[in-house]
Amino acid sequence: MKFSPALQSLIDALRVLPGVGPKSAQRMSLHLLERDRDGAATLAHALEDAVQRIGHCRRCRNFTELELCELCIDGKRDAATVCVVETPGDVLAIEHSGSFRGLYFVLMGHLSPIDGIGPADIGLDLFQERVVEDGIAEVILATNPTVEGEATAYYLTEMLLPLGVSVSRIAHGVPLGGELEFVDGSTLAHALTGRRPVNPL
Amino acid sequence: MKFSPALQSLIDALRVLPGVGPKSAQRMSLHLLERDRDGAATLAHALEDAVQRIGHCRRCRNFTELELCELCIDGKRDAATVCVVETPGDVLAIEHSGSFRGLYFVLMGHLSPIDGIGPADIGLDLFQERVVEDGIAEVILATNPTVEGEATAYYLTEMLLPLGVSVSRIAHGVPLGGELEFVDGSTLAHALTGRRPVNPL
Repeated sequence: MKFSPALQSLIDALRVLPGVGPKSAQRMSLHLLERDRDGAATLAHALEDAVQRIGHCRRCRNFTELELCELCIDGKRDAATVCVVETPGDVLAIEHSGSFRGLYFVLMGHLSPIDGIGPADIGLDLFQERVVEDGIAEVILATNPTVEGEATAYYLTEMLLPLGVSVSRIAHGVPLGGELEFVDGSTLAHALTGRRPVNPL
Repeated sequence: MKFSPALQSLIDALRVLPGVGPKSAQRMSLHLLERDRDGAATLAHALEDAVQRIGHCRRCRNFTELELCELCIDGKRDAATVCVVETPGDVLAIEHSGSFRGLYFVLMGHLSPIDGIGPADIGLDLFQERVVEDGIAEVILATNPTVEGEATAYYLTEMLLPLGVSVSRIAHGVPLGGELEFVDGSTLAHALTGRRPVNPL
């Protein structure tokens, strides 16, 4: 015996959420149906809306409903300095630290040959074009201090130095093996201030 | 600075799920947008469908898309024996134990005067009518062995005994303070077999 078909479909559908197993999905479904049908309807609408409208910014690849995201069209930002991060959450974390006034480039991942993720998959061809066309003077590499993040930073360094761009890596005040978006603002501010130039190899 | 409006709405909407805080909601949103847009669309559809179509069975109050649920229209069940449980999850747990062939009555909660939940809110007026009209011979009380569950069982006993119905409580093989739906099948089977009649007070 199972739950009724519509209920079972909801339980199965909730499993797409990371960290939600069969028991949690069941608990969530019963909670929504018993106590928060309005919330469930709102969530359904928000999901549909997000899937339909959210795309990537043409310049920095961050999530946005517009063609260019709010940061990229903000004339007060320093367009000659670009910070490269792995995820939209990283952008938010750096913005919260209040210590960066340039623009971003969001990789939406990192190089990972094992998973078949190469330079084009994280938009590095686009980024190379942008660096040349927009006359970017400095690139700050803020990928995560993990094996893949370091490899991505190394690849970017190799790609950018021949273009005559100043390349730096945020200081490792960020704990090794950690995730950038969960670090507190002042540690991030420290890491941004203490960045050091990357020497050609 | 925040995420783009549609993304922020999605993060806020995910907070309706029990056990999901701001960080989890952010992680879930970014995961869905980056890696599982199809899953997100399916979830949106399942939520809408569930909210629109799932109601309560007219006889047992369990969740169903039909007027009467699958168990209530199953002619092979013993309609003279009714097991009273708190939630739809409890029905599933007892069905999985394979030791009960009667019908159910789902309270969708328990008596809780502090939260303003009285007998009518858990359908006890409907249940009293049903016991008389359907000629129910035995009622098994399988509410949770918590303070509220015990109080609900006590109230039901007081209500049913004057109607000449045999009333029993499942044996407390179920660990005290626990939740019925998370108990394994054999413990539940034991509890059902070891039920004892409730004496008039």
